[in-house]
Amino acid sequence: MADAIETETNYAGFIAVHVGAGLQSQARLPRYRETIKRACLQGIRALNNGKNASEAACMAVAVLEDCPLTNAGIGSNLTLDGNVECDASMMDEESYGAIGAVTGIKNPITLAWALLHTQKQGLLDGGRIPPCFLVGDGAKQWAQQHGIPLVDNQAMMTENSKFTYEKYKRKLDENTPETTKKIKTKNSDDTERLDTVGAIVIDQHGNVAAAASSGGILLKHSGRVGHSAMFGCGCWAERKDSCSIAVASSGTGEFLMKSLFSKSISDACSNDDLTPDTIRDHINHIFLNRTMTPTNAEKYFGFILLKMITNENQSRSVEVLCAHNTQTMFVGYMTTKQSKVTTCLSELHSNDSLTINIDSVRLT
Amino acid sequence: MADAIETETNYAGFIAVHVGAGLQSQARLPRYRETIKRACLQGIRALNNGKNASEAACMAVAVLEDCPLTNAGIGSNLTLDGNVECDASMMDEESYGAIGAVTGIKNPITLAWALLHTQKQGLLDGGRIPPCFLVGDGAKQWAQQHGIPLVDNQAMMTENSKFTYEKYKRKLDENTPETTKKIKTKNSDDTERLDTVGAIVIDQHGNVAAAASSGGILLKHSGRVGHSAMFGCGCWAERKDSCSIAVASSGTGEFLMKSLFSKSISDACSNDDLTPDTIRDHINHIFLNRTMTPTNAEKYFGFILLKMITNENQSRSVEVLCAHNTQTMFVGYMTTKQSKVTTCLSELHSNDSLTINIDSVRLT
Repeated sequence: MADAIETETNYAGFIAVHVGAGLQSQARLPRYRETIKRACLQGIRALNNGKNASEAACMAVAVLEDCPLTNAGIGSNLTLDGNVECDASMMDEESYGAIGAVTGIKNPITLAWALLHTQKQGLLDGGRIPPCFLVGDGAKQWAQQHGIPLVDNQAMMTENSKFTYEKYKRKLDENTPETTKKIKTKNSDDTERLDTVGAIVIDQHGNVAAAASSGGILLKHSGRVGHSAMFGCGCWAERKDSCSIAVASSGTGEFLMKSLFSKSISDACSNDDLTPDTIRDHINHIFLNRTMTPTNAEKYFGFILLKMITNENQSRSVEVLCAHNTQTMFVGYMTTKQSKVTTCLSELHSNDSLTINIDSVRLT
Repeated sequence: MADAIETETNYAGFIAVHVGAGLQSQARLPRYRETIKRACLQGIRALNNGKNASEAACMAVAVLEDCPLTNAGIGSNLTLDGNVECDASMMDEESYGAIGAVTGIKNPITLAWALLHTQKQGLLDGGRIPPCFLVGDGAKQWAQQHGIPLVDNQAMMTENSKFTYEKYKRKLDENTPETTKKIKTKNSDDTERLDTVGAIVIDQHGNVAAAASSGGILLKHSGRVGHSAMFGCGCWAERKDSCSIAVASSGTGEFLMKSLFSKSISDACSNDDLTPDTIRDHINHIFLNRTMTPTNAEKYFGFILLKMITNENQSRSVEVLCAHNTQTMFVGYMTTKQSKVTTCLSELHSNDSLTINIDSVRLT
């Protein structure tokens, strides 16, 4: 038994993060790259310090949230009322924690993690079942009771997020024929638009976790919860007989939600070898060809996925996948045995309907 | 083509409703029976007046919500703060609408239906995607903007719900060793405890819909959203190649959520013949033996399911199923061609771990 434990700790941990499917503006690429690197390094440091997969995923996503350029945490898209309301969720093999439409929490993912963690402590006083999903003011109240720092919601806004809000709110209020096009077509002007950020982690013991955090759609109705908070939609982590798998997804929230995107892609990819053709088929089947969406709406998605396989000789490898149909998706990944983060700015090439990147990383 | 349409309208519609898995007290059985009958008749009247499946499901569930004895709408369980916060969701083949932790809406299911319906109208001004899930104050604001009547939240409380709240809140505050047992063991005293109500419908054109509505767990934290609101969890409705299927589920919300209960049982039952043995296996696999739940917690469930099969001679029949592991589950169902509601108070027999009832109803 001692041998087995020793062997197990010789496996490397792994993290991958992304800053949101969408369109990253050229001018900001260096800052995104730097953020991705810091998030990966933060997660890897946590793993090397003995933190588990969910803790590492939480700490990495908190770095992404703190970057004012991502649509998560500080700098999130504003609601129709000009407010910041965040969604986040977190999953590991044991539990799921999520928050929706929450204001005034600097790091929404920390609150989702705290909900996940609290459930593992067992039942509450009086045998009550701890909540896994809290929304709005009640979530904020719970955060305060559990020592999670609150901030003034103004502190969640940036000059940039307010500028973007004013610009599109004015267009909406003017209600010109041009409005529809300008707001809906994400990639039609130079304003970059980004969705949910996320992280996927496997720790040295083989536990997987996934996390997602989002400010939601620009000019969303107050109280709107998107896929990032929803079970099976924003992220997924599961240990199966054949493999362990984790997913974090980004894109058009309502449509990702109605396809249970992260769980569905996880189920599909755990059964098959990961080839561009099989993945394309799965995405078509699960998402692009699924009904339950207005026919005139564009369906955007992007996700990162890890699949860890233990071979017969007990060696472990991770396949890491990034796929999207947005203009760009910027990701990074590394293992606890590496000293550098691999970053990849994935771009959609003209004529392609989607882009798929696959890499394989050894954990032994 | 005219022939085909005429043939189709010769099919009957069908509705089934339930007033929540739990323990129905003997003294109140007549009032539950009367409520179930009224709900079914309301749904059937809607279908006979040309309303579609989701409209009929909504109108039936509104009757269940208006009954002060159910844990939905008026008379819902109170939160730890002594408030009423409701969850509800609705699904048909085209869409999904849901609300969570909403106060001051007399009929939460009406708001969920309005969200479902609005999505079918296409995109909003500026090409924005309409929300499918709204929570808290934002949901209430949306309701007001869409002409859904608000009520003072005090009007959602009954003498009975306030009495039950005071009783268990006092026990919790006293924090005696006995507390844990008393609050967690649902069936240990004479206070009846009920979960989510629901309805499943197939209209004369073969469209299916499902709806769920709940006041949530007694003494829940403010902002807690349970399975009733969550996509794939509280209800499910889908037209598959082999059959059409609809599910509404009730029970321990956090655990039902983490098993994506309604979608999972729908997937399992659409592939198999419905026999007690296969259903028991599915429930064990999907819910009872699933991890992600505290080991010392009791996992309660109850659900109604309809499966509509069109035979080779174009005749249609519906199998209707009710299963639960709570002490009782009270259901009713009827077709548009029948004049009377069939009601069934299903009870858990001693030594049984769960109860399964199956009936078959012809729609031609």
